[in-house]
Amino acid sequence: MSGPMTDAMIPGAARVLVVAPHPDDEVLGCGATIARLAAHGAEVTVVAACADLPPLYGADVAPQVEAEARAAHAVLGVHRSVFLDLPSVEVSRGPVAVLNGGLQRVVDETRPELVLIPFPDRHVDHKAVFDAAMVVTRPIGAGTGIRTVAMYETVSETFWNAPGAEPAFVPTWSVDVTATIDAKIEAFGRFASQLQAFPGPRSVEALRALALFRGSQSSMPYAEAFQIARMTSPAGGCA
Amino acid sequence: MSGPMTDAMIPGAARVLVVAPHPDDEVLGCGATIARLAAHGAEVTVVAACADLPPLYGADVAPQVEAEARAAHAVLGVHRSVFLDLPSVEVSRGPVAVLNGGLQRVVDETRPELVLIPFPDRHVDHKAVFDAAMVVTRPIGAGTGIRTVAMYETVSETFWNAPGAEPAFVPTWSVDVTATIDAKIEAFGRFASQLQAFPGPRSVEALRALALFRGSQSSMPYAEAFQIARMTSPAGGCA
Amino acid sequence: MSGPMTDAMIPGAARVLVVAPHPDDEVLGCGATIARLAAHGAEVTVVAACADLPPLYGADVAPQVEAEARAAHAVLGVHRSVFLDLPSVEVSRGPVAVLNGGLQRVVDETRPELVLIPFPDRHVDHKAVFDAAMVVTRPIGAGTGIRTVAMYETVSETFWNAPGAEPAFVPTWSVDVTATIDAKIEAFGRFASQLQAFPGPRSVEALRALALFRGSQSSMPYAEAFQIARMTSPAGGCA
Amino acid sequence: MSGPMTDAMIPGAARVLVVAPHPDDEVLGCGATIARLAAHGAEVTVVAACADLPPLYGADVAPQVEAEARAAHAVLGVHRSVFLDLPSVEVSRGPVAVLNGGLQRVVDETRPELVLIPFPDRHVDHKAVFDAAMVVTRPIGAGTGIRTVAMYETVSETFWNAPGAEPAFVPTWSVDVTATIDAKIEAFGRFASQLQAFPGPRSVEALRALALFRGSQSSMPYAEAFQIARMTSPAGGCA
Amino acid sequence: MSGPMTDAMIPGAARVLVVAPHPDDEVLGCGATIARLAAHGAEVTVVAACADLPPLYGADVAPQVEAEARAAHAVLGVHRSVFLDLPSVEVSRGPVAVLNGGLQRVVDETRPELVLIPFPDRHVDHKAVFDAAMVVTRPIGAGTGIRTVAMYETVSETFWNAPGAEPAFVPTWSVDVTATIDAKIEAFGRFASQLQAFPGPRSVEALRALALFRGSQSSMPYAEAFQIARMTSPAGGCA
Amino acid sequence: MSGPMTDAMIPGAARVLVVAPHPDDEVLGCGATIARLAAHGAEVTVVAACADLPPLYGADVAPQVEAEARAAHAVLGVHRSVFLDLPSVEVSRGPVAVLNGGLQRVVDETRPELVLIPFPDRHVDHKAVFDAAMVVTRPIGAGTGIRTVAMYETVSETFWNAPGAEPAFVPTWSVDVTATIDAKIEAFGRFASQLQAFPGPRSVEALRALALFRGSQSSMPYAEAFQIARMTSPAGGCA
Repeated sequence: MSGPMTDAMIPGAARVLVVAPHPDDEVLGCGATIARLAAHGAEVTVVAACADLPPLYGADVAPQVEAEARAAHAVLGVHRSVFLDLPSVEVSRGPVAVLNGGLQRVVDETRPELVLIPFPDRHVDHKAVFDAAMVVTRPIGAGTGIRTVAMYETVSETFWNAPGAEPAFVPTWSVDVTATIDAKIEAFGRFASQLQAFPGPRSVEALRALALFRGSQSSMPYAEAFQIARMTSPAGGCA
Repeated sequence: MSGPMTDAMIPGAARVLVVAPHPDDEVLGCGATIARLAAHGAEVTVVAACADLPPLYGADVAPQVEAEARAAHAVLGVHRSVFLDLPSVEVSRGPVAVLNGGLQRVVDETRPELVLIPFPDRHVDHKAVFDAAMVVTRPIGAGTGIRTVAMYETVSETFWNAPGAEPAFVPTWSVDVTATIDAKIEAFGRFASQLQAFPGPRSVEALRALALFRGSQSSMPYAEAFQIARMTSPAGGCA
Repeated sequence: MSGPMTDAMIPGAARVLVVAPHPDDEVLGCGATIARLAAHGAEVTVVAACADLPPLYGADVAPQVEAEARAAHAVLGVHRSVFLDLPSVEVSRGPVAVLNGGLQRVVDETRPELVLIPFPDRHVDHKAVFDAAMVVTRPIGAGTGIRTVAMYETVSETFWNAPGAEPAFVPTWSVDVTATIDAKIEAFGRFASQLQAFPGPRSVEALRALALFRGSQSSMPYAEAFQIARMTSPAGGCA
Repeated sequence: MSGPMTDAMIPGAARVLVVAPHPDDEVLGCGATIARLAAHGAEVTVVAACADLPPLYGADVAPQVEAEARAAHAVLGVHRSVFLDLPSVEVSRGPVAVLNGGLQRVVDETRPELVLIPFPDRHVDHKAVFDAAMVVTRPIGAGTGIRTVAMYETVSETFWNAPGAEPAFVPTWSVDVTATIDAKIEAFGRFASQLQAFPGPRSVEALRALALFRGSQSSMPYAEAFQIARMTSPAGGCA
Repeated sequence: MSGPMTDAMIPGAARVLVVAPHPDDEVLGCGATIARLAAHGAEVTVVAACADLPPLYGADVAPQVEAEARAAHAVLGVHRSVFLDLPSVEVSRGPVAVLNGGLQRVVDETRPELVLIPFPDRHVDHKAVFDAAMVVTRPIGAGTGIRTVAMYETVSETFWNAPGAEPAFVPTWSVDVTATIDAKIEAFGRFASQLQAFPGPRSVEALRALALFRGSQSSMPYAEAFQIARMTSPAGGCA
Repeated sequence: MSGPMTDAMIPGAARVLVVAPHPDDEVLGCGATIARLAAHGAEVTVVAACADLPPLYGADVAPQVEAEARAAHAVLGVHRSVFLDLPSVEVSRGPVAVLNGGLQRVVDETRPELVLIPFPDRHVDHKAVFDAAMVVTRPIGAGTGIRTVAMYETVSETFWNAPGAEPAFVPTWSVDVTATIDAKIEAFGRFASQLQAFPGPRSVEALRALALFRGSQSSMPYAEAFQIARMTSPAGGCA
């Protein structure tokens, strides 16, 4: 059952888990939905699987990105931030049990009702984290408490799959984020190294245009869009 | 907003519209979900598009089926039953505006939050009614109040599409119907002419097996499964 | 072979045919590409299949829309506008030969190298016109001169198909329209009855956001996106 | 050519190879078909690719499961059981040649006409074994003797793929297993550690419901369903 | 059960029904398979749904094509030829019951085990006849005797669907037709008006190349390829 | 912009990069297109990712294949041949950065307008190289100069995916190669160890039949077919 105050329009809004391949994907993909949920009383946990670690990246990169992520999460109202610190680019080559185990622990600790995960797109880490997230959210055991698993789009990466040969992101769920699109853009601004100038896909203009476009598909001013992987309605009482 | 008492586990449970190509499809596809929703206070309207009319069918067929449907609806707790009486098998050849207009009127009258529609399967009427239902539930105008449009499976018909050449029913949403599977089977029993002996797909055994199978996919004893066509979360207050 | 001056970046840019189910679809779907092609010397023909005719529409509707379309075409630099005046909503129920024959005549007259056609989406007329356009552009006879057939997106309609049960628009081709996005918006403004206020999908804001979003997918400021149905490279000389 | 006595209704029924990611998948997926084939004189070989090995599992797990599998195979009439003993969960990370080579040897030894393989579903081992099985059954060399390669469903795992983003199991082939469904359930009972209480997906009730549901799709009392990956009809004589 | 002599490599080879939208499609799509089946003792019935009738075609067209078809069928060893004489191009607009009823009668008369039907491709008649054929071969009533329903490719038409927006022919079944490819080409030669000069898709060279290409996919010299829509293995005895 | 002389019918014909998993895939997949492009003045670079290295292969294998490839490239008019010498079969298990980095360097050096890549098919190396090629051709940074990324078919391998469970090659682009099909076959003849006798899929007869079949789909005598992954038309001047 949901707690005393949650968003009446979003199924399973009390405890939310957002799975990010890398810190910033959660903001790009569903930052405004996170802010909306948090504003309505949800307990939102973000778990970021990968970090840009040596030797592929300098030793100062990961700590800085983590600090940026924490600042962004503060803007959005995230309740708890978890960093698994698995190696970016190479996570898909590591033992399956390490990634799955890390995510499983967070699921067990947070018992989410709603889980937002990345779409399996061009980026090899997104594919690996998607796969692990689908495993730990299976509707068995602790997973039976999860009401909704939905995939978010990560600007640019999500649109670089090869049509016909790879899956395409085709959203089924639109969330009105008119009230929180500004918070999303402010939060993304905390990632100093990621924000691009227009016409980059990670520019303020592109983020706002995507939200306006997704909104226009459902008669909302601004929206974030998701592709539902699984929704369940267990036996339950009345609201 | 939802009314004073609704099912806390089903998004948009206050006012529900079920679109049936022919009377009995709504029972086969989502009879137990209807019963669950009604039991939790939802106002459920069923609109049946087609009737088995002369000259393809005898003059007594349609009235009898309608009476059976009303009896079945009473078992399920349906609030209102609408029969558009368009000609079975031939509805897809009639003016588009007649079918669409008939459904639109019911949408306008009931202002549903949740709409359950048939999957576009082997039966030509199912395709036509699916198409019309997708038109009248577009997220514009009155349609913006609809939070969820989901397709149900109609035993047998739904599984006779040609794989690869036609769409396959792949559910995304499971509803626990353990408490109401018996009501569904009782309601289907009201259709004297439709109930088959085992191993027919419309036998008591097949209906129960389908619900048990759909349940087993989501760790529920019995479930009905739906493929979500569209879900929207408009800006809203707290529950 | 192409003429003396054409757009070097667009295959088959000398003679272009744009097939619109209704006047305004061509502007929504590819108005800025039309303007770009025309500005580079292409001879662009627009053929609109349907008109909003009595008895479903008032007698003054079709003439007014045609006048608006001609004004919009003038903004875009369209060379020739053809109106087949088949009945909106009901065209799919008419003789196949009438729609196909009407389009075939325009193909024969214009001998296009590039043909832009609607995606088969929610609107029944879009499906019918898509189907006819695919027939008249088959790579046989006169059709062998066509180098590219591509589908455009019609805001909103294209995104109201049911994911999984109906095809989704997944673009393969992006055209930079930074130089002509303003012309597109100006042209759409000529359709007095169609332009919506924000947040409607046919608002200035939504059109601009779509172009910015499509651009961001390919590192362009503004783009229009197409799904290629067929591209052919006949034996040819050097440019 | 087929031997002196085989099932007249199943193409290539003389020599059958069943590829299981883990022991028990073959029983869940096609145990009743195995029993039917064996009862009609087929020589059925089961090869299980993976075992639950240390350090992820205790040292006693694999031997016990193998003993259970042999007992189950005896119930079904399996001719020969092969255990490759590759590490569960981690097989996809090992050298491709090890898994492929192991399966290739069994294909070479058994020269199957019919090969039943897992669907590439949620479980990473299922994906890896599917992939290897597709390689060793290519219609070249020894593989040209294989008449049918078909994928079976593994309860639960097969239904936890993300619709739209991952492939869905959509069967094309139904095998009547009314005569052997009891043998399947008895065989699965040999896996003491795997059998679940209802409503688990691996309960007696769920297995029976799946078979009844698959049967109802084809007017059979009980059936197992397969998705055909490849069928070939080489030049041949008369039966 | 199969009769005293049938092709041991083809499931359900005793009584075969081939559904052709227009006379000649059956030769293009599966003429060599027909010849192979007939040579092995099968009773092959061909039913052609449409004829090129006035006013769209001259009054002499249909009788001439029918005569050509009978001559072609004689070459292939067809047992019985049925011509429903429904109007080409317009059959999809006629009453559903007329086309379905015509095909149903032939199914009832021939009680086929194997049914070969067109793929739903570019040609509107192919779509309509595919749909009707799928209805009359449902696995209920008389249809439960049908063991295999497979779709054939009709050169050119089948490859003019729009990728991504329409289904693509992706074969699952290859039939070695090395012994009968010449008969197919001879039979197609009986259609004086249809045979094209190279490089037409209906030229001798193209037909032979298609068969060689399909063969090369399965290590056969020449093959015809099919996409299986449904295969069933009812309970049965031994062969 | 294109250089002084290029093929007027092929978008981005000045600088072409062909990515081959193994030497010979580029000839099988697009050898005749390479020859056509080169004959019209294009600068074609071929990069082969993998080599058959010890211990899986003898030490003399890779050098011999490389010599054969260089001879084949000379026949086709290839400008530059690059061999990354990554281990066949095992490349997918190596660090992602090695394969991606190797391809990225070639992209940076050649600044291609057109990139031809393998379809992700049965062969594990083809999947890995496809994936890496899609990464290095993303439309960002240096990649924005790429106008077209297209997938070619590799005879046999491409047709051994499991329909429904894996992607199917469905071409969108046909290139007339009537003038260069002989060069392709001659070039493939340079791979002494790869050329098969008929009816092998890598026989002269099969290669010619495939080209004739692909041609017949677009009214060309001989063609090679591609599935377009991405096409972009940046802002540009006139030709």
